[in-house]
Amino acid sequence: MAQQTKQLDELFHEGLKDIYFAEKKILTALPKLAKAAQSQELADAFEQHRVETEEHVARLEQVFKLIKEEPHGKTCPAIMGLVEESQEIAKEYKDSPALDAGLLASAQAVEHYEIARYGTLRTWAQELGHKDAAGILSKTLEEESKTDALLTKLAAKKVNREAQTA
Amino acid sequence: MAQQTKQLDELFHEGLKDIYFAEKKILTALPKLAKAAQSQELADAFEQHRVETEEHVARLEQVFKLIKEEPHGKTCPAIMGLVEESQEIAKEYKDSPALDAGLLASAQAVEHYEIARYGTLRTWAQELGHKDAAGILSKTLEEESKTDALLTKLAAKKVNREAQTA
Repeated sequence: MAQQTKQLDELFHEGLKDIYFAEKKILTALPKLAKAAQSQELADAFEQHRVETEEHVARLEQVFKLIKEEPHGKTCPAIMGLVEESQEIAKEYKDSPALDAGLLASAQAVEHYEIARYGTLRTWAQELGHKDAAGILSKTLEEESKTDALLTKLAAKKVNREAQTA
Repeated sequence: MAQQTKQLDELFHEGLKDIYFAEKKILTALPKLAKAAQSQELADAFEQHRVETEEHVARLEQVFKLIKEEPHGKTCPAIMGLVEESQEIAKEYKDSPALDAGLLASAQAVEHYEIARYGTLRTWAQELGHKDAAGILSKTLEEESKTDALLTKLAAKKVNREAQTA
């Protein structure tokens, strides 16, 4: 029983390391995305999310502390691929009116990655009886979902339309 | 104007190639996941999703045809990372009661990747006036969302609990 619980503990700890790496990677990418964005609205959304992401990193450090582990990241190939893609789009579509549409798409893929991960981590925290950790993870999950909804709104109502009619 | 529209067209075409590659990769991964799963319920969910994924590939081929392009994939590092992760979990947690929890987490990250991509592609198809393509992409998006909801249900109500109480 103890060993079995430990195995879910291990998954939880591995998952925390994965998202900690991802958040830090995103933190370095967001200022570049804000700089690359054509519309002020999208640049503002990236900047706002950068501020939130700093808080998400700090919250993960709290969760590591709650489970008595040091905050360490673990290379996450998925997020590296997504961040690299966003930088390629920033370069390849630099002067295209479709640039923001491409940046939005990349950012939404990143948000969905985080939504999946935080959803899983919250479930595991609950199962493992880490009530405080589950609460902290829920808070971030909610913010990631809100960011995704904001990006969807920008994608559907503004940026793509600009790409067509500019 | 023509050039600008072409640029969103290019993004759309690139995005189709990305998800076409991803779906084909997922198609090869799902039988392995079904075989690895401990619970019959999860194995069934993977098998059911494999059948759906075959249909998703066929639908993407329809969309390529609608925009008069050949169906070709383009290597997508994010999905390669996610699929590789699921296979590592299948190996590392082979005899652990937390195995299914880990497989579910990987599968949900894959679903969220697809949800993000199909959401974007549908929006772009609408913006570009590809009404039929948008309809086809919507159908798959709906199925991916349903699969994610099913996995969430399994994760929350059954598999993780088994990992704790088995």
